[in-house]
Order: sequence, then C-alpha cells, then structure tokens
Amino acid sequence: MKEAKPSLYTSLSPALLQLYDVSSSIVVIIDVLRATSTIATVLFNGAKNIIPVDSVAECIRIGKQIEGVTAGERDGHVAEGLVHGNSPFEYPGEFISGKTLVLTTTNGTKLLHMALDRGAKGIITGSFVNLSAVCDYLIAANMPVILGCAAWKDRVNIEDTLFAGAVISRIKSHFNINCDSSQMAETMYGDAKKDLYEFMKSKNASHYERLTKYGLEKDIRYCLTTDVANVLCMYEGGKLIKVESYSTSHEKESV
Amino acid sequence: MKEAKPSLYTSLSPALLQLYDVSSSIVVIIDVLRATSTIATVLFNGAKNIIPVDSVAECIRIGKQIEGVTAGERDGHVAEGLVHGNSPFEYPGEFISGKTLVLTTTNGTKLLHMALDRGAKGIITGSFVNLSAVCDYLIAANMPVILGCAAWKDRVNIEDTLFAGAVISRIKSHFNINCDSSQMAETMYGDAKKDLYEFMKSKNASHYERLTKYGLEKDIRYCLTTDVANVLCMYEGGKLIKVESYSTSHEKESV
Repeated sequence: MKEAKPSLYTSLSPALLQLYDVSSSIVVIIDVLRATSTIATVLFNGAKNIIPVDSVAECIRIGKQIEGVTAGERDGHVAEGLVHGNSPFEYPGEFISGKTLVLTTTNGTKLLHMALDRGAKGIITGSFVNLSAVCDYLIAANMPVILGCAAWKDRVNIEDTLFAGAVISRIKSHFNINCDSSQMAETMYGDAKKDLYEFMKSKNASHYERLTKYGLEKDIRYCLTTDVANVLCMYEGGKLIKVESYSTSHEKESV
Repeated sequence: MKEAKPSLYTSLSPALLQLYDVSSSIVVIIDVLRATSTIATVLFNGAKNIIPVDSVAECIRIGKQIEGVTAGERDGHVAEGLVHGNSPFEYPGEFISGKTLVLTTTNGTKLLHMALDRGAKGIITGSFVNLSAVCDYLIAANMPVILGCAAWKDRVNIEDTLFAGAVISRIKSHFNINCDSSQMAETMYGDAKKDLYEFMKSKNASHYERLTKYGLEKDIRYCLTTDVANVLCMYEGGKLIKVESYSTSHEKESV
C-alpha cells in the first residue's frame, strides 16, 4: 500500500503561522536577508553554536555571561552595546571558529520563538546558502513541513518567498502540497531562478532597496548563492547548532 | 512640481490587513470565487442593492425585515434557512432586477467589515468581471489604495492574488508601489494572464479543487472573465450599490 506523504505548507508571514499545525511539523525559519544566511555561514565556518535572542538587552546580558560574540543590527547599523552586525562577511573561520555567537534579529528570531512556543516538532533555519542541506534533511525526516517566511515586520517579502519556492521545487514529489502559498512561491521561484539577484532588482524588492541603500549589494549576492555554506542548522536546547548526521524517520521508527 | 503619487499596497490575507493604513485608503475587497464576482453580477443585472451580512442568522433576520432575497453558502451548499447560493448564474436580470439581495459569505464579508471597522476612506468590491470599473475608479480617485484579498479562512489564495496583480498591471503608473506582495501579485498575473483558468488548474489552486468538486467549473470560468459585469460596486451606508458616475479627487477639491 502506498504510504501517505506528509504535508507541506508555506507561511508567507509570521502573522499567518497560526493557520498551520505547527505542533506536528518541522518548521523551517527563512530570513534570507540576512539572518538565516549568516547563521548558516557562522556554523559553516566552525562556530560552536548560535544563541538567538529577542532583544538587544538580552543579547548583551547573555553575551557577557558566556563570553560570546554579540551581534545584531537595527535599521542597518550594529545595535548600541553589541559588537558585530548581520553580515555573513563579518564571520570568517579565523574569527568565529569555536566561538558562540549571540544573535538578535528583527524578524527571524521572532518567528523562531513563535514556532518554539507553538511546540514545533523540529526547527531548522534555511537560506539559499544551505539549500541542499535543508532539502536533504526534510526528505529524510519524512514529516509534515512548514516553510516559515520571516518576512519584514509581518509584511510578505520576495526573497523569503523565493527560498520557499526553491525548496518546494526540489522536494515536492515527497510531499502532499495543498497550499496556494506554496504554489505561488514555486511559481515565483520558477520566474526568478535564472538570476535571483536580477529578479530582486527588477522587482524593486523592498528589502533589496533597503540593503542597497546601506551599500550591501555584496551581501545580497552572497545570500542568494546556492550552497556556499551548506550545513544543516538545527535549533536544540536554546541553541542553533550544525548537525552533520541524522537518522531518518524510518531509522527512528525501527530503533 | 511633480505631485506625489498615492501609495498602493496588497494585503494577501485578512490576517495581514492590520499592517496597512486602512483609515487613509480605499480598500478593494477581492473574493473572486465567488462573492465579489456575484456581487458585480447582481448589481450589473439591475438589483437595487446588496446587504452583506456576517452570519446566516442575520441574513434570515434582515431578509424577512426588508423582504429581500437571502443568499449564502456553507461548504458548497445553500445554507439552511436561506433561499439562494453564491453562484452568479442564480441572478439573471429577470429575477434580481429591482430587488435587494441579503448576502452572507465566509471570507469576503468578514474582510469588508474589517475594513469598515478600521475606518477605510472608501470600500469597493472587485473581481475580474468588473476589472475595468475598479481600475478606472482607483485612477480617478487618486487616493491611497489597499487591494484586500479575502483569501480562504485567512490562507492566501491564488485567484484573489491574481486579481490584485491584474489591477496593478493596469494602474501601476498612477501609484507609488513599495510592496513586495504587490510585486508578487503582478508577477503571478503576468504568468497567468494568457489563460487564467488553465493557470488555476495547473497550479491545483485549492479553491479551484474545492469548487470543481462541487461541479462549478462554469462558475470558475465566468468569475475569471474580464468585464462581463463591468460595474463599480461601492459600499455606502451598509449597502453595496452600483455607482455610475463619480467625481475625481481633483473635482472634489475644486468643489
């Protein structure tokens, strides 16, 4: 008998997450520009782990407590009291290897904590830089998936939607997808995939505009590059860690 | 000096409406399958007006009080106690002309009342069947616009997004659009416009599936047809009415 495929939904904004059954799903936190791109890069470059926190105050407090590297931006500048920003280029291996990063971001962290509060079965982070790791894991896990776009202050954005579409275009045959948002994301990605950067530019994506104003074209190009920091980033026990091997759901069942 | 253009935003779900400045805007209520298509058809066919209500009970009560035609569906069937359904084909001119329709729908009515509660400057309804009337009015009004998709129980849907895209593709030169949802809607419409029906089908749009199951392909084809009931449907004093002439903002200013 054919086994029923698990479901896959796309939540285009944190304000829509409540519509989906988070407690039975793996939630992929997507904040392409730039939180989840930087998270993958930091773990790829050998950081011990990342502690995502809600506020600048919390970031300072925990940073002191564990002697971690504090990072976070507000309105395109390193937030007062923190030492580093959100750019993936701030975290080469020679600097970040073996360290703990305490990171606060506006949208990604909020969504992660929402998924946590709603009892997600698993939480990973995704961006183009670790697309394959995300897809491989979701296929192996064989569980319901919610692709959670962090958006911008709850407003839907193009880049997170495009990443959801990229994931869907790769893994859709393994899932049962009855979700217009997912169809839209995949359609958008189909239009954009030839040149994601040019697509963002041509659509005047609001986040593209915002970051370009801050001189961050290089960051945008990097964040849209497939598999340049291809590690699986999983949230476990209050921290984001790199996971190098995992059992599939079938293996789990047979244990 | 160049006059600043008014803003245009697209709200892909009622759950996102709160993100936009409703109180300074005209809100276009979009519920293509089938509420706003039927509304335009009913007014096009000569109904006196339409009273949109939240519940079946309210529909029955007001229907009795004013001797109106009561209409509304739940799960694809005429709701108990009401006489008519949501199909535009139930309302030819010989039947509905001169009458008042009391209509309850799941998603469209809810969004309309949200826009009302938030003090929208104006509320109109839109679907492909009255696309030109909607666009002409929005250009003439020269005020901020929110294209409000009614969606399906707050979940984003393809057909309402496509209509937002159709409006944007026609009127964008008159507005300042800094909104990724609008860019996405326009992109989707660009992909779909050659054959909206085939696009919906190919994407397994969830609402397409739902209505097809009820044998409503004919309704879907009609609801996706441009300008077959091309009247401006405006909400005024608790009723939706057909508006045949209106002053532009410039005319208003000079009065």
